[in-house]
Amino acid sequence: MITSDVRQKAHKGRLVLRQLATLTEEEKNKALMKVAEEISLRKEEILQANEQDRKGAIEEGVSQALLDRLTLTEKRLDEMAEGLRDLARLEDPIGEVLDTSTLANGLRIDKVRVPLGMIGMVYEARPNVTCDAAGTALKTGNAILLRGSASAIHSNLALTKVIQAALKETAVPSEAVQLVEDLKRSAVQEMITANGLIDVIIPRGGAGLISRVVKESTVPVIETGVGNCHIYVDQAAEPEMATNIVMNAKIDRPAVCNAVETILIHQEWANRYLVELCHLLSEQGVELRGCPETQKIFPQVKPAVESDWETEFLDKVLAVKIVDSLESALTHINRYGTHHSEAIVTDDSATAQLFLTGVDAAAVYHNASTRFTDGGQFGFGVEIGISTQKLHARGPMGLKEMTSYQYRMYGTGQTRG
Amino acid sequence: MITSDVRQKAHKGRLVLRQLATLTEEEKNKALMKVAEEISLRKEEILQANEQDRKGAIEEGVSQALLDRLTLTEKRLDEMAEGLRDLARLEDPIGEVLDTSTLANGLRIDKVRVPLGMIGMVYEARPNVTCDAAGTALKTGNAILLRGSASAIHSNLALTKVIQAALKETAVPSEAVQLVEDLKRSAVQEMITANGLIDVIIPRGGAGLISRVVKESTVPVIETGVGNCHIYVDQAAEPEMATNIVMNAKIDRPAVCNAVETILIHQEWANRYLVELCHLLSEQGVELRGCPETQKIFPQVKPAVESDWETEFLDKVLAVKIVDSLESALTHINRYGTHHSEAIVTDDSATAQLFLTGVDAAAVYHNASTRFTDGGQFGFGVEIGISTQKLHARGPMGLKEMTSYQYRMYGTGQTRG
Repeated sequence: MITSDVRQKAHKGRLVLRQLATLTEEEKNKALMKVAEEISLRKEEILQANEQDRKGAIEEGVSQALLDRLTLTEKRLDEMAEGLRDLARLEDPIGEVLDTSTLANGLRIDKVRVPLGMIGMVYEARPNVTCDAAGTALKTGNAILLRGSASAIHSNLALTKVIQAALKETAVPSEAVQLVEDLKRSAVQEMITANGLIDVIIPRGGAGLISRVVKESTVPVIETGVGNCHIYVDQAAEPEMATNIVMNAKIDRPAVCNAVETILIHQEWANRYLVELCHLLSEQGVELRGCPETQKIFPQVKPAVESDWETEFLDKVLAVKIVDSLESALTHINRYGTHHSEAIVTDDSATAQLFLTGVDAAAVYHNASTRFTDGGQFGFGVEIGISTQKLHARGPMGLKEMTSYQYRMYGTGQTRG
Repeated sequence: MITSDVRQKAHKGRLVLRQLATLTEEEKNKALMKVAEEISLRKEEILQANEQDRKGAIEEGVSQALLDRLTLTEKRLDEMAEGLRDLARLEDPIGEVLDTSTLANGLRIDKVRVPLGMIGMVYEARPNVTCDAAGTALKTGNAILLRGSASAIHSNLALTKVIQAALKETAVPSEAVQLVEDLKRSAVQEMITANGLIDVIIPRGGAGLISRVVKESTVPVIETGVGNCHIYVDQAAEPEMATNIVMNAKIDRPAVCNAVETILIHQEWANRYLVELCHLLSEQGVELRGCPETQKIFPQVKPAVESDWETEFLDKVLAVKIVDSLESALTHINRYGTHHSEAIVTDDSATAQLFLTGVDAAAVYHNASTRFTDGGQFGFGVEIGISTQKLHARGPMGLKEMTSYQYRMYGTGQTRG
């Protein structure tokens, strides 16, 4: 018996999976262009729906940051439409033959890239995710079931309606993109336990959402996002380079996951250069929280408490710890890090190599800012999230990361044994 | 507080992950050869332990099939040792640069193959898995925590002791291979919820074990093994080829996961050739369970019941269903299949292509027996299981499937924005 909103839609999506998997690149690109066009044409309607969400959020007294994430503007809608057009210009990964071999008996084995199938996306606030995720799913021949947060329901409904209307005029079945309208918490629970109906769950949002989904999902999950990133400034770090990298990684965009949250400074470097670095950070409005050794060198810092080492501040706050060796830095990072992005600044390449191989993270840096962990920077053209797990995909996920593969075996009657 | 057997060992294993990740190919190969040598030298001790397990199993009155799986012999030990030597001869996948690019600002991005980390293996009966899994983990720089079934505990303890003793004389830390000695069901529960301590769980065994692990694990799982495989004999199937393929896929080794369990026969083909196929199968001792249409054509078949379509018989039993189209065959397979191996026999290449792209399975075959879904046949040199899920790895898993990747970023002070 299929009754609930989630199961009904997941089931409807599954029914078009075969059709989606065999769409041509041209059919998919035309659909993306059509959706982009429809969004541009129906901006007014989407913005009105967004205004309803904004009013509700203001009444509820949400933070300015959340309100910002919720807000759509003409410019943002233009960017969303442009993002879809960019997707149309990217290469279609589906059908790529990744490997081929022929057994002695003549049986040919092709390893072929195929869609994942039905993707369940659980996300918070940002309505642009609705459009980005739908576009990425379309391009890769996947169906997607979207479950945004209640605060963005009007925006998400309007966007999905526009997307589906556009698809109806294309070769792509409109069931490829569906929105869960059930706002109860139990709807998320249904999604993450819909084995057999949903092939993969991708959560996007805060640490609370991600950890709930990882813990409670029985459907395979791609864990994304939380970035408690570190920069280790080694004793052999060039002072100006280290200073620039730390400043950039903290200040450029403090609210994103690849911003630095804790710096680990070698004692010798700290003795000579940390005071100036702390001054520069403070001048930029960064609140520093330091370990006892840091407090000795720069008494103006707030004392750091245990939770500061664990926190992704996503704000102009930076924890500072002085360490006596690479080993201490690695131990700290492997204890508190979230496997996202970790950097070392040093002129000693042997130390750098030990750091890079010793840190368990998606992206490890020698002498560069952690801010480069990003699908755009990696040349993926699109980013559906940054995976912090080790299975399937790691780091920025683009189109290829939204695919699986299948072995296709071509024979002439081969049997075994 | 680390108290339990599982958590203590997982923790000990994690402490050597960095060391394992940086071992050279030569160090790992020497260790594999040493373990092989030690197994050959200490056969007596292992066989005595196995005899204890066998006695217990006989007292408990287990099936002959289970007793066979449990039994070690000199020949099997020789094969296990030879398997380790084979592993030493395979290429080390770790450190392979999968991709490299340089941004306009000079930042170089290397995508490098790295170990998964700590693997938790939960398996049943077969003590040879202890050795195979340990060897594969060693070769790929992973640590492994093994939890075999209670019935094989003496064998597994003896094997682990021998492996660890061998490792102590090599560059590989002996904590790389550990056995959970706690036989309580709760120990498995602890493993599959040890997020942060264990990176991936690989279950190997019957459908009950696999489904429990998939449902209850919060650690990412690679689902393996269950193969409810089908062969669709199209109306345009060459009769001798179809007959040979069905016979081979059912009879060659009925107890393995790539054996066929249900054949779907197009009505027209059935009218002309099914009687002879059924006779041939019956002569080979295969019990046939047929749909009503099959019963009309070959009245000797047992009537098939709903559960027959769902069952991986792993025995000389075959369900037979007559269908009126490719579409009906695909609908049946996508409903009852376990995403393992599915075949079509036809001379019509357009029909074949529709089948191959329409079936959601790890391996799809045109005009060949399903028996080729196997790491050995695929040239992997080793097989840790056959994945039936879509994330990370699909189909036979060899060394590469036991790895992840990491982006290593080499800069000269690059900052962003």
